[in-house]
Amino acid sequence: MALKKITVKASRGYDILIGGGLLDNAAEHMKRAVKAKNFAVITDDHVAPLYGDKLADSLKSAGFSVCQKVFPHGEASKSSYTLNAIYDFLSENSVTRSDCVLALGGGVVGDIAGFAAATYQRGIDYIQIPTSLLAQVDSSVGGKTAIDLPSGKNLVGAFWQPRLVLIDTNTLDTLPEEFFIDGLGEVIKYGMIKSKSLFELLERHDSLGIRGVLEDVIYECVSIKAAVVEADEFDSGERMLLNFGHTLGHAIEKMTNYTGISHGRAISVGMRMITKAAENSALTAKGLTNRLTACLERYGLNAEVAFTPYELAKAALNDKKRMGEMIHIIVCKDAGKSEVIKMSTNEFILLLS
Amino acid sequence: MALKKITVKASRGYDILIGGGLLDNAAEHMKRAVKAKNFAVITDDHVAPLYGDKLADSLKSAGFSVCQKVFPHGEASKSSYTLNAIYDFLSENSVTRSDCVLALGGGVVGDIAGFAAATYQRGIDYIQIPTSLLAQVDSSVGGKTAIDLPSGKNLVGAFWQPRLVLIDTNTLDTLPEEFFIDGLGEVIKYGMIKSKSLFELLERHDSLGIRGVLEDVIYECVSIKAAVVEADEFDSGERMLLNFGHTLGHAIEKMTNYTGISHGRAISVGMRMITKAAENSALTAKGLTNRLTACLERYGLNAEVAFTPYELAKAALNDKKRMGEMIHIIVCKDAGKSEVIKMSTNEFILLLS
Repeated sequence: MALKKITVKASRGYDILIGGGLLDNAAEHMKRAVKAKNFAVITDDHVAPLYGDKLADSLKSAGFSVCQKVFPHGEASKSSYTLNAIYDFLSENSVTRSDCVLALGGGVVGDIAGFAAATYQRGIDYIQIPTSLLAQVDSSVGGKTAIDLPSGKNLVGAFWQPRLVLIDTNTLDTLPEEFFIDGLGEVIKYGMIKSKSLFELLERHDSLGIRGVLEDVIYECVSIKAAVVEADEFDSGERMLLNFGHTLGHAIEKMTNYTGISHGRAISVGMRMITKAAENSALTAKGLTNRLTACLERYGLNAEVAFTPYELAKAALNDKKRMGEMIHIIVCKDAGKSEVIKMSTNEFILLLS
Repeated sequence: MALKKITVKASRGYDILIGGGLLDNAAEHMKRAVKAKNFAVITDDHVAPLYGDKLADSLKSAGFSVCQKVFPHGEASKSSYTLNAIYDFLSENSVTRSDCVLALGGGVVGDIAGFAAATYQRGIDYIQIPTSLLAQVDSSVGGKTAIDLPSGKNLVGAFWQPRLVLIDTNTLDTLPEEFFIDGLGEVIKYGMIKSKSLFELLERHDSLGIRGVLEDVIYECVSIKAAVVEADEFDSGERMLLNFGHTLGHAIEKMTNYTGISHGRAISVGMRMITKAAENSALTAKGLTNRLTACLERYGLNAEVAFTPYELAKAALNDKKRMGEMIHIIVCKDAGKSEVIKMSTNEFILLLS
């Protein structure tokens, strides 16, 4: 079994392991990362039947004790209601500061289980075991944890680094195609902001062909993310690049109540809109919008939305990324080259008008 | 106006200002500590009428914008319910990552407002303005924030250092006597664990006389706390000394549903019980239990509880301080000299039997 490893040097350093079949030897990898004797698996009702038992068996045969909390899948679970249920579960199972949470699932599981670990007893260890492409290339790395509020996504959270990220690429075999496509939205984002070679590889493939080189693609995305997180763990500079397409993308998700369009599709629209606006204002190389649009189309990420860029820009200003009266916008000057531009909210509205 | 200053060198350094009348010039001190233009005051219905307007006026005349959230006073408010109400309030008032939370009130306000600041948008600045003796000498310093769960106190929280702690000792003039007495429980704790001279000063005074030297007493307590926090910000060693009397004290609070006895009285009983047990086992200087008991009595802190030490020890083992199968117990070898002793849960039960 091929095994790739990336080490993140954050406030607390940790390894990211990437490979097919890693879950089979989960306990072994965990032993090296944490001292815990008890593990609390947090997962959802899609993932639990697929990998919950497998994980628990691996841990139990290694002599650990395991408890498991399963909540309904989907973004609606990323709420204070589920969070409180997780707290109660941890407390009822006498989980202590020397135990460890395992976040087994996609982005929702990783975000809420990570936030529970960040705050239960003022912070306990946790390990990310992402099972969706989106979580594997993006949300499981970097220590951003969160829940949603009724008024917006990710409005409550913490920076809390995991002790280990275990990416078993075999779990993608059971991922429904629509979620796979969705994750490719973030993959294309990495190409756009930091890796010309990744973007060009994506331009040559499609959603079927890309599966043949998936481990390399994931490795490249995670490497970019790890480097960006190391440079700016607490999201006040470089890390903002990862938000490319997200300001407008989040606005789309919000205006459709997080049910109308998936995250990957929303940020795909966001990337296209901001790139088009930037190209119109000569902030971006001529023709990049067309290249991006063509690339997105290859992966079925060419959704249309019922909102104008202007409407979305207005909506985005209620988002958390509005820093007082100045905001930070990410634009790509060319494929693989991005920058943070600081502008007033008025300039932002104008840019999108 | 005399002004005392202590600087805490934690992961994020900050000043603690101590003096009578500091609230009158609150805005001036805040300007130096944070860049915020907007302040969100979090307070309770006891404190708001006394100091809420005063604080808001000071800020408004300095050109800041201010919003204020008031919740019912008392430990019952330190809940996920109030926390969610604070999140909604911050979101409705468009509070951003460049704004600042002001925690105006006692320990409950400081803990929950601090935790809201630690987690709203993954952490924003906050300033502690403690108005009770307990909060001034203890909970406002050190960055421990928390809420309670139905199953236990402070079970959810974060380490999040304030940007400034503003201790206006004049606010103690409006503090009901019973809360003043309650805070003296923690003051006596500081004497016991770290300062023979403070303990001896307390032995010479009573709850009336001590008011004449209060600023010095608060300064001494805060200095001890600041030094301990600097040595061990994340509570894995030295900082545990601050828990002297708290393991049993928390058990008492829990077994009386947090309504039967105040925090200061509960830890007073806890200090007495653990010291007696330690003296019986020759871990503590002969006669210290009598000295401590006499000192507590001078301040009306000689409560009796309906539980035996053994019963409390059993209850305490469900507390968060149970680290796997070994626990940490704080004992004072003599007045002003404390140490952390690691023992098994069995040894702990035996010690208290």
